[in-house]
Amino acid sequence: MTAEHPSTDDLAEAAAGRPLDGLVVLDLTTALAGPYATLLLAGLGATVVKVENPATGGDSSRNNSPYYGPEGLTVARGGDTDMSVSMMGRGRNKRSITLNLKDPRGRDTFLRLARGADVVVENYAAGTADRLGIGYADVCAVNPAVIYTSISGFGAGRPGKAMDSIVQALSGVMFTAGDPGADPVRFGLPVGDLLAPLYAVIGTLAAKTHRDTTGQGQHVDVSMLGALTSLLSTEPFDAFQQVGLPLRTGNEVPRLAPFGIFPAKDGFLALCGPTDTFARGVFRALGRPELIEDEDFATRDGRVRNADRLHAFIEDWSRSLPRAEAVAALAAEGVPAAEVLEPADALRAPAVLEREEVVELGHPEQGPTGLMGPGIPIRFSRSEARLDRPAPHLGEHTAELLARLGGLTEDEIALLRDEGVI
Amino acid sequence: MTAEHPSTDDLAEAAAGRPLDGLVVLDLTTALAGPYATLLLAGLGATVVKVENPATGGDSSRNNSPYYGPEGLTVARGGDTDMSVSMMGRGRNKRSITLNLKDPRGRDTFLRLARGADVVVENYAAGTADRLGIGYADVCAVNPAVIYTSISGFGAGRPGKAMDSIVQALSGVMFTAGDPGADPVRFGLPVGDLLAPLYAVIGTLAAKTHRDTTGQGQHVDVSMLGALTSLLSTEPFDAFQQVGLPLRTGNEVPRLAPFGIFPAKDGFLALCGPTDTFARGVFRALGRPELIEDEDFATRDGRVRNADRLHAFIEDWSRSLPRAEAVAALAAEGVPAAEVLEPADALRAPAVLEREEVVELGHPEQGPTGLMGPGIPIRFSRSEARLDRPAPHLGEHTAELLARLGGLTEDEIALLRDEGVI
Repeated sequence: MTAEHPSTDDLAEAAAGRPLDGLVVLDLTTALAGPYATLLLAGLGATVVKVENPATGGDSSRNNSPYYGPEGLTVARGGDTDMSVSMMGRGRNKRSITLNLKDPRGRDTFLRLARGADVVVENYAAGTADRLGIGYADVCAVNPAVIYTSISGFGAGRPGKAMDSIVQALSGVMFTAGDPGADPVRFGLPVGDLLAPLYAVIGTLAAKTHRDTTGQGQHVDVSMLGALTSLLSTEPFDAFQQVGLPLRTGNEVPRLAPFGIFPAKDGFLALCGPTDTFARGVFRALGRPELIEDEDFATRDGRVRNADRLHAFIEDWSRSLPRAEAVAALAAEGVPAAEVLEPADALRAPAVLEREEVVELGHPEQGPTGLMGPGIPIRFSRSEARLDRPAPHLGEHTAELLARLGGLTEDEIALLRDEGVI
Repeated sequence: MTAEHPSTDDLAEAAAGRPLDGLVVLDLTTALAGPYATLLLAGLGATVVKVENPATGGDSSRNNSPYYGPEGLTVARGGDTDMSVSMMGRGRNKRSITLNLKDPRGRDTFLRLARGADVVVENYAAGTADRLGIGYADVCAVNPAVIYTSISGFGAGRPGKAMDSIVQALSGVMFTAGDPGADPVRFGLPVGDLLAPLYAVIGTLAAKTHRDTTGQGQHVDVSMLGALTSLLSTEPFDAFQQVGLPLRTGNEVPRLAPFGIFPAKDGFLALCGPTDTFARGVFRALGRPELIEDEDFATRDGRVRNADRLHAFIEDWSRSLPRAEAVAALAAEGVPAAEVLEPADALRAPAVLEREEVVELGHPEQGPTGLMGPGIPIRFSRSEARLDRPAPHLGEHTAELLARLGGLTEDEIALLRDEGVI
């Protein structure tokens, strides 16, 4: 992580050999779902130009507490170079330009940039992009080959306030965790926000393949609710309910017994023993090899019928041991088992760090922060895919990119600046 | 949904105008993570050839209870045409060929097919593909431009039994739901399995773009643990903990109050009021407009400080109302709110059905089943993306595709069949 601002030339060099090298993306997104989509495109090598409103301080994520700066991590913003942790993560490998799109000169400038862009990504509320004159029809009019990707709560043009918890509630996902009959469970990982960007990137790249074949661009439209509900429907919850299997079973799964999360002396462990072989391994690890011959537990049917007793045996055993010791005993018998980790430990596990699936975040001036954030969890044998450049400050690349991508003259840029459009 | 087996010609016709039309994918995957990746590729228009072992009955998902057949939904398999609900969902728009890859003639036949393939996808245990002679090096030797995508638990070549609960445990995700200090929460939606395929499709399509530019194929390597842990690290849980904010807050979020899941007379509702405007809407919906001027609740700082009292006011109000009525009252005041739906209702909501994000599953002979499964949650303005063909029975397309894609003669195919290789 460099402590200097990288120039665009440096970026071009670093991007050589990335899979999406040369792809130009105009990024109109804010908050989480949209910026995560363009973060992936940036890490895969696209030139992502983040368009931010100078009148509002740019992407709302720039104002998410906590911040990082010369004083380290702080709840309130201190000096000018303080950057929100959210932006340090989501802004990496992007360039930032300021442009007030509510001003007709801002819109015209955007459309000049859009003439040379491959992709536009937006996550405005329904109707906003069209009202601003930067919707798919507007961009298509100046660049028919553009791929224009919209991420919304409920589908392009469908109104509704799509906060993560709202999407989770409507998707059914809150009733997949917890004990039968218990309250629904709000999930801390914002799956309502974070699945749509993955499908949006898939859609964008599929449309790129289509364009490479046909020359045609198109509109790609992904909804947060559809993404999460669709993924949920991959599990046959529906069929389970119809044949009388419970939808929720809490931390244990009786129909796969022995199977579940069990308490240890110093935490919890996960154990999965749905086959005869695994179950026998569990009995040996527990020091109860006689259960292998016990008719109540010898077969899968028996174990399912006697799941509560079986899980109680495991709990009696695991409670008395440190979790690492219990996991080691199960692993020695070939049983799939793992410690249940807290996020802080999970993000620092050697496997994910070595593979750069999780990486340390850097601040543009302060360098390494000790805070962890997402890498690109895809490894390519012949390409690089990496988030290795710190997030830009607001508007850091405005003049350079308006000239290079939009063809604006120095005088034009100076005028826009004087008039507060950039 | 047709009640006849579609011929490959029908499939080719239906696939016209799909974004990945013409892309040939050899699918070596089993269970859930791998098959979901190739399901998305199939829905996007790729020709996906599922390679299944005739000696074991093919993909293990074919033996997941419950089944669907002439008797409807059943726990045990009945007749020959019964198909597991898992396969009815995951097998759509794929072709199935049988090939015993442990037999050298099976391997040779596979490599003949691989010469003409664009993509191979596999999710074998570490070392298996190489041992069978169908690893990346083997396929690359006959087809250097191939994109070879591996989905594994912990990364290509890293051993370990990666069941969904094990991956969830190691990712930290189980400590993002539930109350502070409570047990970890196992999530029913298998996020340990289902994120890796999304990144695998992104990686495959990014490698396709790279190949279209450079002519080079490559190995794409995605791990289940890395995919989930990376996605988890998009939220600054790490920074929150360091500034003293709790990682887990259960169903309410005090730092955003009023915000959370609240009980109603007949279920639950989600409510998100983190801004002044939304909070005022909540007070009006509750019939407590005086709180707008109350210094304990007028500002965000006040509401956060008094979050427990504020959330108790909401609960007192919401408990007495049907959830639909409470949501309507909040919506009338512009507050983001929603009923918390059960999966069965969520999968049948008009919005996701109209957009084909969730669709009805069909059985190859029985037709529509009344069971819901995933669509492709991406809409394209100029292409089709749709899962509209029922899953094949085991080996249904063997002879046809060995001839067409592998160039095998009728005699060669007959010999392989006689000797049990196909």
